[in-house]
Amino acid sequence: MPHIALPPDLPGIRGAMAFRPQTARPLNALVEVLLTGENTLSRGERELIATYVSSLNCTHYCHSIHGAIAAAHLGGDEGLVRQVKTNFMRAAVSPRLKALLTIAGKVQQDGKLVTSADVDAARALGATDLEIHDTVLIAAAFCMYNRYVDGLGADQPDDEALYRERGKRVARDGYVTVSEEYLKSHSNAAAR
Amino acid sequence: MPHIALPPDLPGIRGAMAFRPQTARPLNALVEVLLTGENTLSRGERELIATYVSSLNCTHYCHSIHGAIAAAHLGGDEGLVRQVKTNFMRAAVSPRLKALLTIAGKVQQDGKLVTSADVDAARALGATDLEIHDTVLIAAAFCMYNRYVDGLGADQPDDEALYRERGKRVARDGYVTVSEEYLKSHSNAAAR
Repeated sequence: MPHIALPPDLPGIRGAMAFRPQTARPLNALVEVLLTGENTLSRGERELIATYVSSLNCTHYCHSIHGAIAAAHLGGDEGLVRQVKTNFMRAAVSPRLKALLTIAGKVQQDGKLVTSADVDAARALGATDLEIHDTVLIAAAFCMYNRYVDGLGADQPDDEALYRERGKRVARDGYVTVSEEYLKSHSNAAAR
Repeated sequence: MPHIALPPDLPGIRGAMAFRPQTARPLNALVEVLLTGENTLSRGERELIATYVSSLNCTHYCHSIHGAIAAAHLGGDEGLVRQVKTNFMRAAVSPRLKALLTIAGKVQQDGKLVTSADVDAARALGATDLEIHDTVLIAAAFCMYNRYVDGLGADQPDDEALYRERGKRVARDGYVTVSEEYLKSHSNAAAR
């Protein structure tokens, strides 16, 4: 049961965004640039960073949906996503991504824990300044999205099939398109 | 010394924003809606929430600049800002703001710590759903901004006068105007 009157038909962050479209716009724009914009980190890699941080924050809705989007980008490999959530050092991802996930995990706790040695290690494995910047900001941003969803007591369904289906759609259509469609269908529903 | 090549003349989040204008835009838009948009919470009250959360995260740049902006909105009362940082329950702010700061402090730790009782207490003191929503999102957003600044190892000067002067300007001119001006002066400098 959400702490405030969020639309009952929209789980997770979607209800919160429909409640306050003025803040939904920059929140959507940020995730779109970070996770779908042009980047030398693949969309699958960036979704894995978002999934990992959301999993550390134990925010069920966010690590489930971003895990599903990551899997959709990674040929449907849900086992790989689970492995990143539980112990990424043993996952079949590149050493460079492991170094970036290490940085992301520290940002999730406290940005001050990131050391020059962490950054040097990522750089030695080929990470660019932009990739390091985006890793820090993706991790920081999901500390926001996760707290936003949890702090409002938003509905976070258990049904895995729901995340899997939606994950495929977001991977295909992008975030803003999907959100705008929901906002539209929601405001239409409210107008009826 | 920042972990990546941020512009040396721009401290705190400003260097990070100049490094990556594509993400600076939604980051600026979000803080502008939350802290300067039309709202039944005053600008001073919202800056106090941002300051308090940044202070809990021990992010010197953010709690200093937002503390200075808050003071500028509160008739220059720097003592009140310090009191909110150290023990807001004894500060001369409204019971409603104290109830909202309690929620913000829980969001800073983990959104799941916010209880129905916390929200009911705020509501009993006159807080609206929108105020509760914005309190949760301001707290969540500053958990992002703080981690972004700390995680990049951005420069965070000690000089209090610098924050005081800039706080007055942001209180007067708003965020986007000031940031755009800096981005412009920075890209001009780079072009020379």
